[in-house]
Amino acid sequence: MPGKTGKEKMIIIGELINSTRKAIKKAIDEGDVKYIQDLAVRQEEAGADYIDVNAGAYVHDEAKHLVWLVEKVQEVVSKPLALDSPDPKALEAALKVHEGTPMINSISLEKERYNALVPLVKEAGTPVVALCMSDEGMPETADDRLEVAKVLLGDLDKDGIDLTKVFLDPLIKPVSVDGEYGPQALDAIERIAALESGAHITSGLSNISFGLPHRALLNQAFIVLAMGRGMDSAIVDPLDKKKMSLVKAAEVILNLDPYAMNYLKAARADKLV
Amino acid sequence: MPGKTGKEKMIIIGELINSTRKAIKKAIDEGDVKYIQDLAVRQEEAGADYIDVNAGAYVHDEAKHLVWLVEKVQEVVSKPLALDSPDPKALEAALKVHEGTPMINSISLEKERYNALVPLVKEAGTPVVALCMSDEGMPETADDRLEVAKVLLGDLDKDGIDLTKVFLDPLIKPVSVDGEYGPQALDAIERIAALESGAHITSGLSNISFGLPHRALLNQAFIVLAMGRGMDSAIVDPLDKKKMSLVKAAEVILNLDPYAMNYLKAARADKLV
Repeated sequence: MPGKTGKEKMIIIGELINSTRKAIKKAIDEGDVKYIQDLAVRQEEAGADYIDVNAGAYVHDEAKHLVWLVEKVQEVVSKPLALDSPDPKALEAALKVHEGTPMINSISLEKERYNALVPLVKEAGTPVVALCMSDEGMPETADDRLEVAKVLLGDLDKDGIDLTKVFLDPLIKPVSVDGEYGPQALDAIERIAALESGAHITSGLSNISFGLPHRALLNQAFIVLAMGRGMDSAIVDPLDKKKMSLVKAAEVILNLDPYAMNYLKAARADKLV
Repeated sequence: MPGKTGKEKMIIIGELINSTRKAIKKAIDEGDVKYIQDLAVRQEEAGADYIDVNAGAYVHDEAKHLVWLVEKVQEVVSKPLALDSPDPKALEAALKVHEGTPMINSISLEKERYNALVPLVKEAGTPVVALCMSDEGMPETADDRLEVAKVLLGDLDKDGIDLTKVFLDPLIKPVSVDGEYGPQALDAIERIAALESGAHITSGLSNISFGLPHRALLNQAFIVLAMGRGMDSAIVDPLDKKKMSLVKAAEVILNLDPYAMNYLKAARADKLV
């Protein structure tokens, strides 16, 4: 397994085009192409490396709506999409219409999901988000997460998946439920990074702040702390200017942005707050 | 040496009343008590645990001006002051008028400074900032910092100083000068924390951003990253609401703020941004 240098900038997956959000569902229902495309363009301009598209709210015809999203979004952005579904049929249909190589979001160690999706990922050669979750449920401690991560990486490697295209998601739990969930998540990130498997570490991080006020603030602190421990990707709202600014600042301090080139470019474009 | 639990909130030293800043020098020159006192009160209200006072701009009569600052500031705040001077005469005079126990800012491993100040610190039993600097100058790498920190802690322990009152400052250098200064500083903090000497780790952290635009943003990212590695104090502008908010959010995520009590209190007081 090739070593990761740990010297790369954050890979941002823009999460906003998700049919479980009311405004998005409404836009899809009404065929409001402009609304969806505008959100896609704004996420790309804000620095998203992938634009996530999710049609999971359409239980009976997810494939059809996912395909529609892919087609409409690709009309206006050049960055690849993250096809956000656990359903092999929806993913297959979306893969057929996606130009270039998208990301698949997501597989897990749950047997049924793993077996259905891994052949698809392998054939398409896509980057893939891999949740640290097994049939035994969500992991509790850093130890649990590390254990699931190791098995998942081992299985994927055996099944011929290029680990440098894997984005492990340690699955973050709310600190409002248990104060130790924060340190446990950061610990898991550090120890998964230390495996030097070549895999990236990503996270749908807004879960950390569930149940507390000023959630954006907590998410901002968490993304910086997680970067400090080796997380190199995140599934986030890239339109949160403060969060994206802090990510760029943390990249400078962690020496992931040589000569602060990216930071200075953002400063000149008036993107930093 | 007693172990530190690592479970304490950040200790904030408010840096604004410093005569090397033009507006402060002017206020002292003009005897503008109101200006100084207002700044002291606002720092205390913003959450400073110590109010730093520095009269170093007055080369020939630093003691007189430091005493004046101590008297005026203590009229309006209840938090202790940090007497910011390397001059034993100025410190002695200020210690005489300070009610309660102040902090001394700062000693170092430089022989002359160490020998002049340590007896004073010991006698007064004050907390003390200890710079990781020797007669060989400022340390370059994390290794250098750790070496100086170890000698400094050993000497202070031998000389009867309670290490739980020591605030080691690893001395941060600008990332604009060398991109590795960020990772080296964070590494030094983690390794000094791992000594479990009982000493705190603090930092006048604004140096990190010297020479780059949007310095406050870089300082915000740095303080969060440094907290993640074990820094438990900082010498900062507590009136930077965003920075203080991020500190409180990071405390929640690092489980330094049980049940997020302090965070929720700040939210209710409308102090979070």
